[in-house]
Amino acid sequence: MQQDEQAIRDVIESWHERSRNGEVDGVLELMTDDVVFTVVGRPPFGKQEFADSSRKMKGLKLDSQGEIIEVVVRGDTAWSRVQLRVAMTMPDGKAVRREGYALSILTKRADGKWLVARDANMLGPPT
Amino acid sequence: MQQDEQAIRDVIESWHERSRNGEVDGVLELMTDDVVFTVVGRPPFGKQEFADSSRKMKGLKLDSQGEIIEVVVRGDTAWSRVQLRVAMTMPDGKAVRREGYALSILTKRADGKWLVARDANMLGPPT
Repeated sequence: MQQDEQAIRDVIESWHERSRNGEVDGVLELMTDDVVFTVVGRPPFGKQEFADSSRKMKGLKLDSQGEIIEVVVRGDTAWSRVQLRVAMTMPDGKAVRREGYALSILTKRADGKWLVARDANMLGPPT
Repeated sequence: MQQDEQAIRDVIESWHERSRNGEVDGVLELMTDDVVFTVVGRPPFGKQEFADSSRKMKGLKLDSQGEIIEVVVRGDTAWSRVQLRVAMTMPDGKAVRREGYALSILTKRADGKWLVARDANMLGPPT
């Protein structure tokens, strides 16, 4: 169980590190193919739309920080709560900040790898 | 498994029905004692704060509708995604509407009862 928790913490850390580095394919490796993302103000969306949006943001500098509040493992299912701090710097140097929390559900694949299966992102409006 | 899914659907239906009827204690029965609610724009909060907020809204007419998008049961853990449509009518007759999605995690208690353990609410701003 402790190994599973550590593996999940590593997934979350990698997610933010790869996001900061603009490694879109690397982030896509951390989610299931049928992942569903839910945010405020638009319908839920899947992996392809996540990839498309991420690739469109390639010109931006993204500083994504996630502080893990909890990781709860129950068999081959787990959830995590993370406090998010995101700063995006536009090509013109303008920056916006967004803060909030995320609730994610992760599932353990047959090969033992943990992947994000559902994600609820409650980032507030840009400030 | 199918029985579990039905039990969870019943919890979600009861949640909205009891909310509409202002049955705060009835809603509190549908969550674990250590439940955590996450919304946009404020820190996560627990059962006591949920109860306090709900009791403060007693003067409002709440029309809470939840359309279940999915219920996924994995052992004694499950998650649900629900499309929310909430209308609140103030004592002066003024009404506001909010729409969005929720992602909830439910856990099965030793006695077989399913309860909401974590809830992420992505209702948009009032319109």
